[in-house]
Amino acid sequence: MSNLNELSLKAVSHLIQSGTVQPRELVSDCIARIELCEEELKAFTTFDPERVFDQLTEVERQGNKSALFGVPVGIKDIMETAGMRTTMGSKIYRDYVPQRDAVCVSALKTAGALVAGKTETTEFAYYYPGRTRNPHAPDHTPGGSSMGSAAAVSRMMIPLALGTQTAGSVIRPAAYCGVTGYKASHGSFSLAGVCGFAQNLDTLGFFVRKVEDLTTVRHTLSGAPAEILPLSGRIRAALVKTPHWEMADASQQQLIEDVCRHLQGHQIEISEIDVGPSDGALTQAQITIMGYEGCRSLSAEYANFSHLLSDQIKALIEQGQQTTHTAYLEAIKLGNIWQKKMRSVFKDYDVLITPSAPGEAPQGLDSTGDPIFNRVWTLLKVPCIHLPVAFGPNGLPLGVQLIGAFNQDDRLIRAAHQIQEVLAEFEFVPN
Amino acid sequence: MSNLNELSLKAVSHLIQSGTVQPRELVSDCIARIELCEEELKAFTTFDPERVFDQLTEVERQGNKSALFGVPVGIKDIMETAGMRTTMGSKIYRDYVPQRDAVCVSALKTAGALVAGKTETTEFAYYYPGRTRNPHAPDHTPGGSSMGSAAAVSRMMIPLALGTQTAGSVIRPAAYCGVTGYKASHGSFSLAGVCGFAQNLDTLGFFVRKVEDLTTVRHTLSGAPAEILPLSGRIRAALVKTPHWEMADASQQQLIEDVCRHLQGHQIEISEIDVGPSDGALTQAQITIMGYEGCRSLSAEYANFSHLLSDQIKALIEQGQQTTHTAYLEAIKLGNIWQKKMRSVFKDYDVLITPSAPGEAPQGLDSTGDPIFNRVWTLLKVPCIHLPVAFGPNGLPLGVQLIGAFNQDDRLIRAAHQIQEVLAEFEFVPN
Repeated sequence: MSNLNELSLKAVSHLIQSGTVQPRELVSDCIARIELCEEELKAFTTFDPERVFDQLTEVERQGNKSALFGVPVGIKDIMETAGMRTTMGSKIYRDYVPQRDAVCVSALKTAGALVAGKTETTEFAYYYPGRTRNPHAPDHTPGGSSMGSAAAVSRMMIPLALGTQTAGSVIRPAAYCGVTGYKASHGSFSLAGVCGFAQNLDTLGFFVRKVEDLTTVRHTLSGAPAEILPLSGRIRAALVKTPHWEMADASQQQLIEDVCRHLQGHQIEISEIDVGPSDGALTQAQITIMGYEGCRSLSAEYANFSHLLSDQIKALIEQGQQTTHTAYLEAIKLGNIWQKKMRSVFKDYDVLITPSAPGEAPQGLDSTGDPIFNRVWTLLKVPCIHLPVAFGPNGLPLGVQLIGAFNQDDRLIRAAHQIQEVLAEFEFVPN
Repeated sequence: MSNLNELSLKAVSHLIQSGTVQPRELVSDCIARIELCEEELKAFTTFDPERVFDQLTEVERQGNKSALFGVPVGIKDIMETAGMRTTMGSKIYRDYVPQRDAVCVSALKTAGALVAGKTETTEFAYYYPGRTRNPHAPDHTPGGSSMGSAAAVSRMMIPLALGTQTAGSVIRPAAYCGVTGYKASHGSFSLAGVCGFAQNLDTLGFFVRKVEDLTTVRHTLSGAPAEILPLSGRIRAALVKTPHWEMADASQQQLIEDVCRHLQGHQIEISEIDVGPSDGALTQAQITIMGYEGCRSLSAEYANFSHLLSDQIKALIEQGQQTTHTAYLEAIKLGNIWQKKMRSVFKDYDVLITPSAPGEAPQGLDSTGDPIFNRVWTLLKVPCIHLPVAFGPNGLPLGVQLIGAFNQDDRLIRAAHQIQEVLAEFEFVPN
């Protein structure tokens, strides 16, 4: 067993591109790993090893040796896949098999990637949990909504999986599963063929092993540079505790502060700043928009299949129906005002450091945890990266969230890459 | 024959809601009209009268007497319709029958509307024309891309049709066909289930007979107020000639100036202002974004079915592939800067008045005309309304484009409604 499944996307693509490794070896290793762990982990809603090999045969036949040649990837089950069931995590779509691929899926395929399977999602990417368990402790949540994608990458099943974020659906599961997660700047990628929830918030994201893997995917999907450019000068970082700091566990708080101290000792400037009003109005604006747009995205399901919806999503829809159009527009406007103000923040800082989640993954599978530390950044349309850093007092992953300037995702990735390197030597001793 | 097909959406919905008219009468009149004119006009890609009646029977059975009860609507053929062919105007999808409705379609259905049929579109809503002819002169273009929707409403086939705009695909066909057209503020409505072209530009729009119809549709799709609120004070309007004024025909220029003079005589303040840099950089930014995002949205079609694509769309894709990521981000940034600057413009003015198109619909069916007067407003994400006003020297429709502040669509509609009323007495005598 060669364990190619354990390599990062960039490392394994490089080995394939140089001819050192045959894609068939990688696919075999990934499938063996999925077959070993899936019964316990339940990362996949749909997984069929034969179809993965069939895709590989087809890609080989086409001679398509693009950047992701032969790489198996996980696709969140709200993204349409031609000929492959796409359930949206909902009983309504239990047997729905689309005929077309979502644009993000077809772009990966065009680059030579193989759909390893459809990864588990909460119902319509909202809160009602899917079956996935936390890869580090099966009775803890993996987070949501992109739960299967985060768990599969964490458990070394696949080197890349796609997710989406409307509140905290990429960064939170990345944190709870201990993998690198990235939510792009809003509008960076087409969401055509992805089940929409809230058009002013929904954004694509990726789960990978290493920060440098992100550039490979961004290059494939959006033509961004394929390599991380060298940084000029010292990184200027700012700790942002947010109005919700007291909702973070002591260990999460300590980790962030210890990380900042460590970075300061390694040529990274650290300040502490506030962003946004102190009363949590931005968090409330995100909640307002999500409910208002979400209830309209799901209006047909609510009207026709209410009996197949969870109580959670019905409550959200009904909350959205109660919200006035004026309150909704006010929420959008507040977001716009602060999106603009963020530009000046990023004149002084390259990156913000803030919690990804309140702490380690909570026990229990009935809830996917709280996106309280993610809502504002999604509202502000800025790129976010979760960097796994250490393990907390319960032996579950902890990490930090890094925030960049809108549409300066490459600058954020450069900073995150350097921070990742500096933190390789970091040791965390919870108090 | 009762000619209910000739009534505006608001008028006919009112008659149905009050029980004065049975929906079956309206449907019969609309179908009779379609059958009379469709052979010449070719507004529909897919039209099956039996299915319209079947939908009506089903809506009646459900007792769904919502706002659009029994109203037949046209759906642009890039919007997915469950069980009804959706070709995207492309040979690739000639036989594609989706299983789900786009969110905008399912919302109309939930409100009791019936899908009258799928309206003709250019290939993937770009330039390669569909079959539709101009309702006022069959050898002239109806404009594109939402050509069938504009023509069907103009020819009194249906009181409402949906379209989308990425450059000028709602306002231009509305102008050439002589109907009221509305492109919403970007992000107002979910585009889930609509074939995406450029995520930072694509926006939903409607074709109707009267400005007041827009509120009915906006209420149904986004919960905006169902009625036009009374205006307080005089409307402050500004004529914006744009850097492309010289590209407008003499008759279009004269119409705009005569309209402004007429409005000034009717309690509407008129100023003249410039918006945006004088070198057309905003137009160029829109072109850059459209090509860059469009080539990625269609990457799978280009890779796998290039022989089924038109030369026009292949040229766009190849232009997009040549554009650098940096140039793309610069274009997005320039758009953002001017979106912000537009806010102060709308502190001084309620509405901008500007050409919808260079003039009357050009002769010939090989081109759909030039979106030169639409690109900037789509880039700036602001709402636009085309108001048909008069007929030009060739006997084809002419009108004006009204522009509102971002996410203040209701304020624009109020102003447009008053302008529509004032222009009822306007007479145009081309020089």
